[in-house]
Amino acid sequence: MCAHKASEFSIIARYFAPLSEDALIDDAIAVGCPSGMEWVMTTDSMQEGIHFIGDESPAALAQKLLRVNLSDLAAKGARPRHYFLNIGLPSGTGENWIAGFADGLKQDQKQFGLTLAGGDSTNTKRDISLSITVMGLVPAGGMTRRSGARAGDRIYVTGTIGDGFLGLLAAKGKLDAPAMLARYRMPTPRCDLGIAIRGLATAAMDISDGLLQDLGHLCRASGLGADLVLEQVPHSADGVAWHDGDEERRMALLSGGDDYELLFTMPEFLEHHLLSIATQTATSVACIGQMTKGNAWQLRNAKGDILNVTEEGYSHRFI
Amino acid sequence: MCAHKASEFSIIARYFAPLSEDALIDDAIAVGCPSGMEWVMTTDSMQEGIHFIGDESPAALAQKLLRVNLSDLAAKGARPRHYFLNIGLPSGTGENWIAGFADGLKQDQKQFGLTLAGGDSTNTKRDISLSITVMGLVPAGGMTRRSGARAGDRIYVTGTIGDGFLGLLAAKGKLDAPAMLARYRMPTPRCDLGIAIRGLATAAMDISDGLLQDLGHLCRASGLGADLVLEQVPHSADGVAWHDGDEERRMALLSGGDDYELLFTMPEFLEHHLLSIATQTATSVACIGQMTKGNAWQLRNAKGDILNVTEEGYSHRFI
Repeated sequence: MCAHKASEFSIIARYFAPLSEDALIDDAIAVGCPSGMEWVMTTDSMQEGIHFIGDESPAALAQKLLRVNLSDLAAKGARPRHYFLNIGLPSGTGENWIAGFADGLKQDQKQFGLTLAGGDSTNTKRDISLSITVMGLVPAGGMTRRSGARAGDRIYVTGTIGDGFLGLLAAKGKLDAPAMLARYRMPTPRCDLGIAIRGLATAAMDISDGLLQDLGHLCRASGLGADLVLEQVPHSADGVAWHDGDEERRMALLSGGDDYELLFTMPEFLEHHLLSIATQTATSVACIGQMTKGNAWQLRNAKGDILNVTEEGYSHRFI
Repeated sequence: MCAHKASEFSIIARYFAPLSEDALIDDAIAVGCPSGMEWVMTTDSMQEGIHFIGDESPAALAQKLLRVNLSDLAAKGARPRHYFLNIGLPSGTGENWIAGFADGLKQDQKQFGLTLAGGDSTNTKRDISLSITVMGLVPAGGMTRRSGARAGDRIYVTGTIGDGFLGLLAAKGKLDAPAMLARYRMPTPRCDLGIAIRGLATAAMDISDGLLQDLGHLCRASGLGADLVLEQVPHSADGVAWHDGDEERRMALLSGGDDYELLFTMPEFLEHHLLSIATQTATSVACIGQMTKGNAWQLRNAKGDILNVTEEGYSHRFI
């Protein structure tokens, strides 16, 4: 009478329980917090037809979902520890898909050092709907916030900007750039650098909705403006080939989504130390401008011309 | 240049930031844990076309989403404190819908004493997709688990069983029972009783997928069997009218979903104390059977006949 015949529960037991420390047999998990530490928590969703097309490998989808969340933890200087998964799948998805998805989670759990703490699996009517909520640890009071930048701080980014934008073009078949497609489908959360600059960076966030729009968020949170130099923004070889010196194209790279690099501010005197952190964590960093008094950022080119930005980045619209 | 033109962000600022303590201006939230306490965390999703039809008021949907999560916290004996919201809406949803949804959250936040800690709002291609992850506090090590039942413990349920099943019939227009429809659309998480029986109940869980199936989960987690008496299971006046003494119909009420009552076990000698807790928390409780050695539950009627159960409860199917 207690026979385990239910598909949902057998799927959980087979594919998701092995990803957890406690086999997910309860309604909830009890999580303590090590003395002197705090949990940093954040959540991100991915919807079929909006964030992904549906032809991606389920393992890659799982990894992107986890990584976009880890990117937020990285920005906050938190060391990943646990996550919760909400997975909504249409009936007929198939066990192979679920096995692939769980395998992607397993790979990245190992790489980034966290485990599944709980979740909910449901049917959806038509489209795949995925959410992850992550938890990471920082020393109490030590989370790097968006709001701590000071006028005069230098503004830095990790990696190269606009690869997500080019990767999306590639995914749509409008650009032949396999490296960009790979970057779009599998971002690299900058966990090591994010943890290393905690307590040194005055503000940080990850770049997910376009550099310019995200810089706007950081400016508002810090109550400051910013002065950005177009040519100082680092691009990949594919990015450089694509913009080819054209200002409009350079600006497009600054407003595309899905970069998952870090944007952070730091006093100038720490730059030598920052460069050694960059080396130690094998993460490139570039100074792209400076925080200013006021309440607006501006973008100029190396000649000093103020540029007119018409599109800052991506936003969902509900109305 | 920093103009706040993006719809997603203005919606968050207008409707969701007022539900939080820190205005949701960062990528993440830092959450400490009071000394000697532990967080209990759980998550539940609701999908349009699966968990709801789409004609419900957005306020009621928000409250049900929050309450199904609170029901899990109640079962674990945790006092609600924070929640994260993942809300996926098709474009064109409209601001009125969002305003109503946020208002439902606001009402229940006040009633149950928790605040919004973070979230993610996205577009979906077609259907509404909702998830909440809740956090509540228990004394460290004090969470009521599914796995602690002992042979001989009495099995109790709160409230009345099968109202969710009848409410779903009503929602489908197959039954005229407004009280059941109301119970289905707006469950009552048994927070006060769940907290009061923490440390007294040997095991507990909430009944969301059908009493019999959920009892099976509790049996497996505790490594025990159970002996259940059909006529001891409490039903509402609508439930009694519907089953009218018919055994098949009684059994149907035990395998329908969406009751959100508590199922728990407790040694018999605590029954007087339990009854006073029930009075204090204005929550009815009924003993429906006893935990047994072995690994299977059985359902019998008052005459002692073992009943043959063909359907234990609800499960999502992906394959």
